[in-house]
Amino acid sequence: MSAAALNARLAAEHPAAARCLSPLGARLYFPRGIPVQAKEAAACAYNATIGQLRGPDGHAAPLDALRRLVPALDADQSFLYAPQGGLPNLRDRWAARLAERASPGSAPLSRPFVTSGITHGLSLLADLFVGPGTEVLLPSPCWDNYAQVFGTRSGGILRSYSALSPEGFSVEGFAAAVGALRGPAVVVLNFPSNPGGYAPSAAEADQLVAVLTAHPGPLVVLCDDAYQGMVWDAERPPHSVMHRLAAVADPERLLVVSTDGATKELFYFGGRVGFVTAVLPGGGGAALEEKLTAAIRVSVSSVSGTAQAIVLAALDDLALLAQREALHADLAARWARLRDGLEAAGVPAWPFNAAFFALLPAPTDAEELRHAFLKDGLGLVSAAAGPNLRLSYASLQLDDIDPVVEILAKRLAR
Amino acid sequence: MSAAALNARLAAEHPAAARCLSPLGARLYFPRGIPVQAKEAAACAYNATIGQLRGPDGHAAPLDALRRLVPALDADQSFLYAPQGGLPNLRDRWAARLAERASPGSAPLSRPFVTSGITHGLSLLADLFVGPGTEVLLPSPCWDNYAQVFGTRSGGILRSYSALSPEGFSVEGFAAAVGALRGPAVVVLNFPSNPGGYAPSAAEADQLVAVLTAHPGPLVVLCDDAYQGMVWDAERPPHSVMHRLAAVADPERLLVVSTDGATKELFYFGGRVGFVTAVLPGGGGAALEEKLTAAIRVSVSSVSGTAQAIVLAALDDLALLAQREALHADLAARWARLRDGLEAAGVPAWPFNAAFFALLPAPTDAEELRHAFLKDGLGLVSAAAGPNLRLSYASLQLDDIDPVVEILAKRLAR
Repeated sequence: MSAAALNARLAAEHPAAARCLSPLGARLYFPRGIPVQAKEAAACAYNATIGQLRGPDGHAAPLDALRRLVPALDADQSFLYAPQGGLPNLRDRWAARLAERASPGSAPLSRPFVTSGITHGLSLLADLFVGPGTEVLLPSPCWDNYAQVFGTRSGGILRSYSALSPEGFSVEGFAAAVGALRGPAVVVLNFPSNPGGYAPSAAEADQLVAVLTAHPGPLVVLCDDAYQGMVWDAERPPHSVMHRLAAVADPERLLVVSTDGATKELFYFGGRVGFVTAVLPGGGGAALEEKLTAAIRVSVSSVSGTAQAIVLAALDDLALLAQREALHADLAARWARLRDGLEAAGVPAWPFNAAFFALLPAPTDAEELRHAFLKDGLGLVSAAAGPNLRLSYASLQLDDIDPVVEILAKRLAR
Repeated sequence: MSAAALNARLAAEHPAAARCLSPLGARLYFPRGIPVQAKEAAACAYNATIGQLRGPDGHAAPLDALRRLVPALDADQSFLYAPQGGLPNLRDRWAARLAERASPGSAPLSRPFVTSGITHGLSLLADLFVGPGTEVLLPSPCWDNYAQVFGTRSGGILRSYSALSPEGFSVEGFAAAVGALRGPAVVVLNFPSNPGGYAPSAAEADQLVAVLTAHPGPLVVLCDDAYQGMVWDAERPPHSVMHRLAAVADPERLLVVSTDGATKELFYFGGRVGFVTAVLPGGGGAALEEKLTAAIRVSVSSVSGTAQAIVLAALDDLALLAQREALHADLAARWARLRDGLEAAGVPAWPFNAAFFALLPAPTDAEELRHAFLKDGLGLVSAAAGPNLRLSYASLQLDDIDPVVEILAKRLAR
């Protein structure tokens, strides 16, 4: 479909999404090039379209020096080009995972679109929705790469609000910042948060959703759900705010879209398998998918089939759930030990209950403190915002927690 | 380093590269964020910097549902975040491959920078060197994704010349097109070519190099070497024009950079492992690497460690060479059979001697002809330029060649 036809279709199906397209997002379309023509020739006796090798049986014929390294993987999935959007079975498998978490009354979701890790999902969405001058609302503090992706790379104007309060998420700060946005704009949510390690309560999540649905739009609400489900405080909702938004979002005003993936959820950091999923089914979802297809074709063309095959096989492994739960229990134990240890030692911390992190207010310059802790044998990450120090307890063993708290207490105890 | 300091360093070490930076290329820098801080904490007893899990021994601790799928791979390489730029051993291994092919008197090359496939290398270089209005010279016909990457995505102004002549590469057309460029501009070379399947003779390569070195610059010469080494006519130079340019390029006028990878060279289509390498050693190479590091951090963050580990293990496998040579011999046999078959059947073709393709002039509309051939049971790719039809003999078996020539002859024989 031409860019103009695609934009018209999106406008008809989801006006907010269409109005939020960046100049690049509006230009992008997927030409009827080699991947389309190869598909059309799939039934031919002789399919001489595509520049990849297959064996006489029509399947992948990898060199044995590579094949012997992954004998358990499907060779076609692992060695041939994966389609733009990802392996079909993997997309369906991920869709089923998301569907299990849907809130009552949720609108259907688009088919998950595979990206080369979660950063890639963010950058593809930035291609579509952030151009020079687009306002992008980020929490403060936030993952430092957001500023690079949405600001340095895409030219967006970064807005910010303090997301932290001693009680939890600062709904007031968020409401004021959203209220000041003149759409089209992008709002980035990140729960469980990095670097905060915070997941909102059900009440906070409801308030946050109310703030967004009260905005006249058009807004793209981008839920960075990298740490989806990793909420250690059992009284908090474990799933993404996206599902709550899916129950109330209005296509005239809000496009809700999430990035998530195997990076943290399957602890497959090096794999680079992420997903982009929107609250946008049917024709609108197809139009958005064609925009994403165009954007991925010009960035990485397709996502590693080997990594996708590993994620798919793992998701189909009945043993996966128990393995993940054991690791979750381990992380929850580290979290509880750290929380209790910091409290006992009188080390102040922002509320934390999820993901991998605790965020500690820095009483002096965060960079200076970070260097002091390096000399103590403890590596932390400094965040200028605050200033604060981020501690990743995922990188520590359970037995490390007590000595680490001791080191922290010497410089940070009240 | 700040963007300004980085740009100054590049200007001192390689003026042409600095003058060719796009607005985005000039903005990009790698902030002292989490990856840098994690590196600084590597020696700490407690390294709580990074949001990934390790086991008590400090190594990767993947879930068994994933680990059991790749038992032969190094778990750290496969499951932990690979550094921006790629696995160090893989980079060195690829550098050694390139060094073996260097021309006498070549300037040293930068350390190969790992990308998520070759398209990703092109798009990172487009980020650095192509902005709105940058002239980009493409051969015609060329891979259809070039126009999307350099034009639709980066906003470059596409220039073109007919690269085909009945004798081989059209040096005259190329010289006229290069002469019309006012630097800063980008010249894309692609040998062996897609869709042409053509590698130049030594004389043509020398003429081409002379055209480029005569230009006042500044130019970025981007060698897309995806099909590097796959030259079936034994009398032609098998290696990239980059190596010839490396012997004569002047940093005041020309930046020479190549993209290549395991996609075709190791027939690892689904892996997505490519490399960017520049004729730019030392401090200039380091500055360019920092720009690439910044550009990859905001696009995919890092490249699949699993795919990199597979490529590295395969390159270290003594059996690889014989396996590749067997497949090369097989492809060369398909090529010879096709060339002879087309000639005997009186089917005109542009000169072809390399890569996976033969390009056939279309006497009528290429799309109509493509659809007619689909009905004959033969899938080809249509190229508006010419018009021509691309036949990928890599996708056919040796025994398919004769019946395919018969189908072609019915519609295309003189």
